[in-house]
Amino acid sequence: MSLQPVLEAAADRKASYLDDLMQFLRIPSISTSPAHRSEMQRAAEWLAERMRAIGLRRVQLIGSGGHPIVYSEWLEAGPQAPTLLIYGHYDVQPTDPDHAWLSPPFEPSLRDGYLYARGASDDKGQHYTHLAAVDAFLRTHGKLPLNVKFFIEGEEESGSPQLEQVIRDAADQLRCDAVVISDGGFLNAHTPRIDTGVRGLVYMEVEVRGPQRDLHSGSYGGAVHNPLQVMVELLAKLHDDQGRVTVPGFYDRVRPISDEERQALKRIPFDAEQFRREEVGAPALWSGEAGYSVLERIGCRPTLEIHGIRGGFVDEGQKTVIPAMALAKVSMRLVPDQDPLEIARLFEQHIRRLAPPTVQVQVRTLSYADPALVDIHSPAVQAAVIAFRQGFGAEPVFARSGGTLPVVAYFVKTLGAPVVFLSYGLPDDNWHAPNERFKLDHFYRGINTSIIFMHTLATHASAG
Amino acid sequence: MSLQPVLEAAADRKASYLDDLMQFLRIPSISTSPAHRSEMQRAAEWLAERMRAIGLRRVQLIGSGGHPIVYSEWLEAGPQAPTLLIYGHYDVQPTDPDHAWLSPPFEPSLRDGYLYARGASDDKGQHYTHLAAVDAFLRTHGKLPLNVKFFIEGEEESGSPQLEQVIRDAADQLRCDAVVISDGGFLNAHTPRIDTGVRGLVYMEVEVRGPQRDLHSGSYGGAVHNPLQVMVELLAKLHDDQGRVTVPGFYDRVRPISDEERQALKRIPFDAEQFRREEVGAPALWSGEAGYSVLERIGCRPTLEIHGIRGGFVDEGQKTVIPAMALAKVSMRLVPDQDPLEIARLFEQHIRRLAPPTVQVQVRTLSYADPALVDIHSPAVQAAVIAFRQGFGAEPVFARSGGTLPVVAYFVKTLGAPVVFLSYGLPDDNWHAPNERFKLDHFYRGINTSIIFMHTLATHASAG
Repeated sequence: MSLQPVLEAAADRKASYLDDLMQFLRIPSISTSPAHRSEMQRAAEWLAERMRAIGLRRVQLIGSGGHPIVYSEWLEAGPQAPTLLIYGHYDVQPTDPDHAWLSPPFEPSLRDGYLYARGASDDKGQHYTHLAAVDAFLRTHGKLPLNVKFFIEGEEESGSPQLEQVIRDAADQLRCDAVVISDGGFLNAHTPRIDTGVRGLVYMEVEVRGPQRDLHSGSYGGAVHNPLQVMVELLAKLHDDQGRVTVPGFYDRVRPISDEERQALKRIPFDAEQFRREEVGAPALWSGEAGYSVLERIGCRPTLEIHGIRGGFVDEGQKTVIPAMALAKVSMRLVPDQDPLEIARLFEQHIRRLAPPTVQVQVRTLSYADPALVDIHSPAVQAAVIAFRQGFGAEPVFARSGGTLPVVAYFVKTLGAPVVFLSYGLPDDNWHAPNERFKLDHFYRGINTSIIFMHTLATHASAG
Repeated sequence: MSLQPVLEAAADRKASYLDDLMQFLRIPSISTSPAHRSEMQRAAEWLAERMRAIGLRRVQLIGSGGHPIVYSEWLEAGPQAPTLLIYGHYDVQPTDPDHAWLSPPFEPSLRDGYLYARGASDDKGQHYTHLAAVDAFLRTHGKLPLNVKFFIEGEEESGSPQLEQVIRDAADQLRCDAVVISDGGFLNAHTPRIDTGVRGLVYMEVEVRGPQRDLHSGSYGGAVHNPLQVMVELLAKLHDDQGRVTVPGFYDRVRPISDEERQALKRIPFDAEQFRREEVGAPALWSGEAGYSVLERIGCRPTLEIHGIRGGFVDEGQKTVIPAMALAKVSMRLVPDQDPLEIARLFEQHIRRLAPPTVQVQVRTLSYADPALVDIHSPAVQAAVIAFRQGFGAEPVFARSGGTLPVVAYFVKTLGAPVVFLSYGLPDDNWHAPNERFKLDHFYRGINTSIIFMHTLATHASAG
């Protein structure tokens, strides 16, 4: 099946694919917000309708009660051809702080070669490239060089609570030779990165309750242990002065970084000062966990972050309150072979040990996900290297992602299928932040890369 | 001038005085909220109109551009009679968290012998007792036994920024023999307290800025110093393990508690376990600053409290963000002879010294107030003792207030007038918290106590 006409068909339809994506982005599919339940349904149905229009078969919304997974397939390449499962997610992060957006998050806006909208890069714009690729194949040849199954979930930003069960229950339906995931990003503006692993996650809430009601600091200050003070003292003890997480047992199961991986990481072109200046913007990078480089800390080492502290008075002006309670949101990124539920237990024990008798403490686990590693020697990864070379004219590097995709562990464990990352995001795409964007050039090149990837994977599999 | 008919007149008009107070409480006079500016003006005008109706003269709104001070006077008792300045404030605290109110904060509600509303006890209900007392005198005798000047400000909850200047500028107009302040409370349900001092205050904001935008903790966790982590580590260092404030120089000017005061405090009936159980409700009291009793820590020692921390994600659900900034609101209660601006400077230096190079730190002083002590041997204080005995049938105790009233230092320094506290609040009136309330019995007895106080002060001054 010849490739060039497919790429030409994709080039002809750039405007149409962009228009599709903008429609998709206008639906505020925030999975963590109960108020957006009907919008989630609308996004799933919009996606299913697109799949039908492109020519995919057996389009269905599946799941076990949460936001549905949009499934579809095209299996007419025959049993000799490989089967590719394409994973993505149509849900997006919340948009706060809303005032910081230069254009409304759900009114896609084109500026300076970027498409600005919540979900543009994470992940609607990325997984849509594969739909466009399939469309280009079917328009050109009326068929695909391989079998495909789309599996686009709606709860990635909520920790994918139903996914493990759904994948287990539908293992026959989902059977495949490789899983492609486009939910990540380049190493830098010019260097594609193929993720060799993802971190796990456990997301905790810590609640500290002191007085039974908010108190006046004039009448009670000095006699009452302020829950915010207790909270900052607890949270400040979670790192030692070497940047290490102090939860006892936290590092026990961490697989040491192999010499091979350390050497590979050292070969990656990475300028810490440029990273600080262009991506982070802080006055200095954090030295973090002692003994590890920046890339090692981001990808291969576990971390602990505070995401927010609630309690007391934070509006403009002044209020001299000792709040009755304080609540903190804390997550830990995990690496093989840490077990999220064990870490949650150790964390809770640690907090309980540290908490003073002046308060009551509750610790809750909101979600968790296993870490996973990727087999870089699979045919799918080799096809991805070729696709990046041709689609972007660049040599990809291998590195672990610091992010979390619970689905990787589920696919690896349950389907036994090799996973490959084919990601087109950029480090400054503002994921999970105001002004999320996706570079238009990456959207179009991403479509080409997906076409080349499918073609290469089919050709090599047939040849092999 | 006979007292009994005045008390009878006040008794006859209880329903009317309560109705007046409820009208007053319906006006949401939140001085710290720019959105409530017109309500502030409405409250001031309502109060001025009441004063005119009662028969006070020279009613005027004075000030230098902030929320106006409501002034009025009645000086026809003659030059031989003492002149009493009555201070209060018609502004109230914000109402958040609004969901925690059992009845709306600005719809006064009578339940179980209490009047529930924002401002009921702090301070509309308290200073209104003096207006009712003046009304009862004028209705009964057509005159008062002494000269009075009302001075009711509208920026007490905002740190009274214009007050020092206004009192200095209007010193002639405000000249008096004593200042009475009703903006405090009983020691416990049965024991009136005459405050012998007030703490000063300095209210600070600390802002920590790290990355130039919110970052995804998966992609950056481990390489970027999370501003919330920096913040908790900074704030946790502000107390040592003995509960002392660590700001260098913080205690240098603190006047030691005299043996006489320590003994007086020990004579006060105070049950720490009952205080914990009935007022605080925490699992245990805080041991606080080592070496001092609870009452010493609340009244005579300086403290530092965290009132809120902003930054990151605190809504329901999960967001794995490393926020670009974190902001904390912190205040310090001060005692003689600490200087608020010096303490603000020391605090800022301390924060700057502690801050790591990974962030930018800003420290702002939002407001400040001097601490002050009261002369307990003045005729006004002696009249207050008699008034409490007769009005409440209880012997008052002397103790410093832990709260802050900047105006005390201004009156003492600028007018040279002795200050006396005549306060009718209760410890569980929920000041600065949801469900603020004022005990109706205290409102009515407060009116009587004010009548007796004015009568006693006039009689003693004439006799003396």
